[in-house]
Amino acid sequence: MSYQYSIILGNLGNTCDRFCKGYKDNPSSPEMLSRALAAMPGISGIELVGTWDIHSGNVKEMKQRLADAGVACASIIPDTFSPKEYGKGTITSRDPAIRKKSLDYLREMSYIALEMDCNIVNLWMAQDGYDYLLAADYDQGREWLKENTQKLAEEFPSLRFALEYKPKEPRNFSYHARMADSILAAKETGCSNVGITIDTGHSFVAGENVAEAVVLAKRAGDMLFHMHFNDNHGSWDDDMIVGTVHFATYIDLLFWLKKTGYNGWISMDQYPYREDAAEAIAESIRWVQHYERLVDAHFDEIDSLIKENDAIRTSRFLRKLVGA
Amino acid sequence: MSYQYSIILGNLGNTCDRFCKGYKDNPSSPEMLSRALAAMPGISGIELVGTWDIHSGNVKEMKQRLADAGVACASIIPDTFSPKEYGKGTITSRDPAIRKKSLDYLREMSYIALEMDCNIVNLWMAQDGYDYLLAADYDQGREWLKENTQKLAEEFPSLRFALEYKPKEPRNFSYHARMADSILAAKETGCSNVGITIDTGHSFVAGENVAEAVVLAKRAGDMLFHMHFNDNHGSWDDDMIVGTVHFATYIDLLFWLKKTGYNGWISMDQYPYREDAAEAIAESIRWVQHYERLVDAHFDEIDSLIKENDAIRTSRFLRKLVGA
Amino acid sequence: MSYQYSIILGNLGNTCDRFCKGYKDNPSSPEMLSRALAAMPGISGIELVGTWDIHSGNVKEMKQRLADAGVACASIIPDTFSPKEYGKGTITSRDPAIRKKSLDYLREMSYIALEMDCNIVNLWMAQDGYDYLLAADYDQGREWLKENTQKLAEEFPSLRFALEYKPKEPRNFSYHARMADSILAAKETGCSNVGITIDTGHSFVAGENVAEAVVLAKRAGDMLFHMHFNDNHGSWDDDMIVGTVHFATYIDLLFWLKKTGYNGWISMDQYPYREDAAEAIAESIRWVQHYERLVDAHFDEIDSLIKENDAIRTSRFLRKLVGA
Amino acid sequence: MSYQYSIILGNLGNTCDRFCKGYKDNPSSPEMLSRALAAMPGISGIELVGTWDIHSGNVKEMKQRLADAGVACASIIPDTFSPKEYGKGTITSRDPAIRKKSLDYLREMSYIALEMDCNIVNLWMAQDGYDYLLAADYDQGREWLKENTQKLAEEFPSLRFALEYKPKEPRNFSYHARMADSILAAKETGCSNVGITIDTGHSFVAGENVAEAVVLAKRAGDMLFHMHFNDNHGSWDDDMIVGTVHFATYIDLLFWLKKTGYNGWISMDQYPYREDAAEAIAESIRWVQHYERLVDAHFDEIDSLIKENDAIRTSRFLRKLVGA
Repeated sequence: MSYQYSIILGNLGNTCDRFCKGYKDNPSSPEMLSRALAAMPGISGIELVGTWDIHSGNVKEMKQRLADAGVACASIIPDTFSPKEYGKGTITSRDPAIRKKSLDYLREMSYIALEMDCNIVNLWMAQDGYDYLLAADYDQGREWLKENTQKLAEEFPSLRFALEYKPKEPRNFSYHARMADSILAAKETGCSNVGITIDTGHSFVAGENVAEAVVLAKRAGDMLFHMHFNDNHGSWDDDMIVGTVHFATYIDLLFWLKKTGYNGWISMDQYPYREDAAEAIAESIRWVQHYERLVDAHFDEIDSLIKENDAIRTSRFLRKLVGA
Repeated sequence: MSYQYSIILGNLGNTCDRFCKGYKDNPSSPEMLSRALAAMPGISGIELVGTWDIHSGNVKEMKQRLADAGVACASIIPDTFSPKEYGKGTITSRDPAIRKKSLDYLREMSYIALEMDCNIVNLWMAQDGYDYLLAADYDQGREWLKENTQKLAEEFPSLRFALEYKPKEPRNFSYHARMADSILAAKETGCSNVGITIDTGHSFVAGENVAEAVVLAKRAGDMLFHMHFNDNHGSWDDDMIVGTVHFATYIDLLFWLKKTGYNGWISMDQYPYREDAAEAIAESIRWVQHYERLVDAHFDEIDSLIKENDAIRTSRFLRKLVGA
Repeated sequence: MSYQYSIILGNLGNTCDRFCKGYKDNPSSPEMLSRALAAMPGISGIELVGTWDIHSGNVKEMKQRLADAGVACASIIPDTFSPKEYGKGTITSRDPAIRKKSLDYLREMSYIALEMDCNIVNLWMAQDGYDYLLAADYDQGREWLKENTQKLAEEFPSLRFALEYKPKEPRNFSYHARMADSILAAKETGCSNVGITIDTGHSFVAGENVAEAVVLAKRAGDMLFHMHFNDNHGSWDDDMIVGTVHFATYIDLLFWLKKTGYNGWISMDQYPYREDAAEAIAESIRWVQHYERLVDAHFDEIDSLIKENDAIRTSRFLRKLVGA
Repeated sequence: MSYQYSIILGNLGNTCDRFCKGYKDNPSSPEMLSRALAAMPGISGIELVGTWDIHSGNVKEMKQRLADAGVACASIIPDTFSPKEYGKGTITSRDPAIRKKSLDYLREMSYIALEMDCNIVNLWMAQDGYDYLLAADYDQGREWLKENTQKLAEEFPSLRFALEYKPKEPRNFSYHARMADSILAAKETGCSNVGITIDTGHSFVAGENVAEAVVLAKRAGDMLFHMHFNDNHGSWDDDMIVGTVHFATYIDLLFWLKKTGYNGWISMDQYPYREDAAEAIAESIRWVQHYERLVDAHFDEIDSLIKENDAIRTSRFLRKLVGA
């Protein structure tokens, strides 16, 4: 095994939905960190959500905590999704003051990434999209998205900005919806330090084959910067434990990550609404590690199967993997 | 026009999602009532959410307020969805204490319905379902659902309990998922005062043709008790203004409501995350009223079209409706 | 292992789609039978499609062939889907001559079932549905469906008529769309010899949890008569080799088949467009047999897991099953 | 109104699905042409399917027929989908002989386009994709797709090759699946005469907002070459009469076609399984013409609405359009 595993700290916190304001109590960031380090099998990184986990006031403290624990800051995830003022968009808002404010916030988070020796800023531009037809200027929205992403990427050339796509939620349509349109959005900036984050569950909902999405990013020029893992039933971002729904899909994914030379983090991103968070996330790690081992052990065999294009041989191989 | 229109009071309140805790400020129930009455074109009923809008402590006051305003209490909607203790189910929880507590709560809400001279209790059993495969006893869950629904219906024979179905959210799978399975669940109780609520958006997400769902309820014995209207893009419960996505669907629906002799409320149930709530709901009312007028004006023509089974004539008719 | 396995003979034949008239050559029914018997691991039954494989002219011959091969006729599947005259419905056509003709055809196929000592007539009423909104009388269609199904069931009381549901294709909406509405349709006939066939792929497309569909049929009174197995990617009836997409889903399904005492056939129904048909179907059999063995070996453990309602334990169990 | 309208000749022919080999009789190409010209309101172009309608043996005759009728050849659609030898791919087949043969066929069709004074070759690469996970080399497939598309485009610099995308059917996954990945595929060739065809129904199934897809093509450099119109219920390519399901969607689409300066054909592409083909297609034309007139009449108003980002105003506008 060769990947470095990480988790998102906030996944250990309270969970809610639009009906229930909280299924659990919310621990403090330091408490979540302690829990994570105690429970997780072999993680070497932590992703921190901006404002919640990290802000100008606690950077030094968090840096020390991670150092003490011997883990890296895997990414900074700016909180572009929870402030109500961003409800109709951040850097694509029609209000110039909101565009400026949110860009300034992204700058602040980028400085923090630098201070944390972290080179991934994970941009989930969740509010940048629209809800109703005939009520949004798609072209202007994408133009602002391009301009401001470009400014950020040019101002922080040593950071890698990873666009995390998702077809919908919280907006009915997101601008960064799928792998291919996010590649186009990244390329529009002309900045090679703008790339993509795959969240496996977002990809399932998008109707993509996630392994093929990896190939799209490779062909566009090594544009896969970051990976978020979780599972769902296919129609919605259920944010479940990896491997409780899909199986072959993850083998295909891990195979193509290896084949395309992906060398970023393998990070868990789930939302354990009603489960013990630390245990649920630890389960996901164990599943992905199992897939990684399977792919390591059978790499040449899979490489041959994909060239043979014979569903029957592939079926036999999959049966072998599950002991049948 | 012959239907009575109503709204859900809480739709005028704050909206949130699992990322943003509130896109707006939350008015008090009396404030929402004032706004509703001022803004809505021709409503004669209000649905009240249990605990939020109405509880043992304010029944008399709310009754007076509605009386003063000249509107009826269209339904009571017990809050089975927001308390964290109901996260893994109410009357289907594996914890007998939760089953008892939630049944008692439903009894309390039923008494309040009686006091409010309201004969519809709208049961959206949102937490009664499951998330993961191989982690739920579907048969036992349905058995508890049957037993407790039956108890409630037998104890309050003058009330009508309307099961509001939805395929998922907040659980990955709901027990009351679609029209037909909810009819089966209602029939299992053996109580004729258990029937169904259609929420148009839930039906769209379920992959049903909502007009055919009306027919299923009719054939099962006049089991359609209540109607909630909203719109969405088809894959999720976006809870939008009626008519901003679908058009022909609503004509078909209003036609079959009339043809099957539906005589319940026409109520709006939407979730105007980022819109002015009163205006957004008023828009929905105007759309449904437009559909009702179209169906009234063209009833015989539509009745003839459905018998002719000729898509070309139907297309011509639809074009005529939109002035083409 | 305790189930009897079978296949549909026609699955060994040519495959086509609406663009390509045939990806393969079409063997004769006797040739397909020889191939099936040679290639399949441990089947004891064959399903025959009416008119194609079996008709008044060859009943004795086919009966002898099956007898010689030592396999039973698992079901008769009347061909209600390929004659162009049935394009707008069979027993629900608005043309009384078509209704009569198709009912007579179903009677003829029922006599053949009796002659073949076969007690399952699998009714996939594929053309009975509609395509456009506002162009079908859903109530009249269901009434004809009920009347004619009832006639058939009453005339052949020793046969079991199994309604195979599917949400769409070839019609945009089918009357037998999902488990619950098909139970309602069966119950409308008042005949206890009308029940249901689950096709796993149809169930996936319907958005059901197929294991829960088994429970619905059990609770409605042992109404699951027959099982068709295949796999797909979730959004369409891709008719693939079992187990190449889903995994946990099948474990859950086999568990509930056993727990509810299902004692019918386990039959393969796939459509190997571009694969060697016999090998592709044999793969599916091997997968289902694997699931059956897993469930047999872990029945009590699963029975305990479903009561515990703990996703983490379920995840651990699934990892154990795949050797992780 | 400013667009030129056309139809696909083959849409007037027989229709079938994978169960029924033909719902109608199949007229000859000249008969279909006569029917089309008699029935269609104001078309000035015809799309011809390669091999079926046009081949080396009848080019002169077809050219004369179109000239006599006063209509242009709007596009040539090579038949890459019906020959069984292309079942596992054309220019992406793992068999080099098939890759060569299919490329030669595309060259032949390109010559025919030149002879017909037609500058659009509509490439629906329907068999170029895959069905099973772990059974296809996505990278190699895309590489062959790029190489051969590039060869074709370089050899015929005066033609415009329009990639028609569709997420699935006949393959479970297509390489040209959505607008954005098809833009990437087109750009990989480095040829400015490779662009995109939107089929509205394919776009609906892909989960895209089709109007936003138009904007993506515009931003990528005027890459929208061609338009195919039809309608469906959202989950599958039902190929229905335009406007029988969607309404606001088409207004948004026609608005953005105009705003982005689209100047190609407006062509109908449907599959009237059980309808009179000429009348069904004529209905679609009338609907699109209605949308075009609406957009022409309200262009500035819509342009203002999309900037205002106010769902309530948009709803009011839509109600006005339908006379409410």
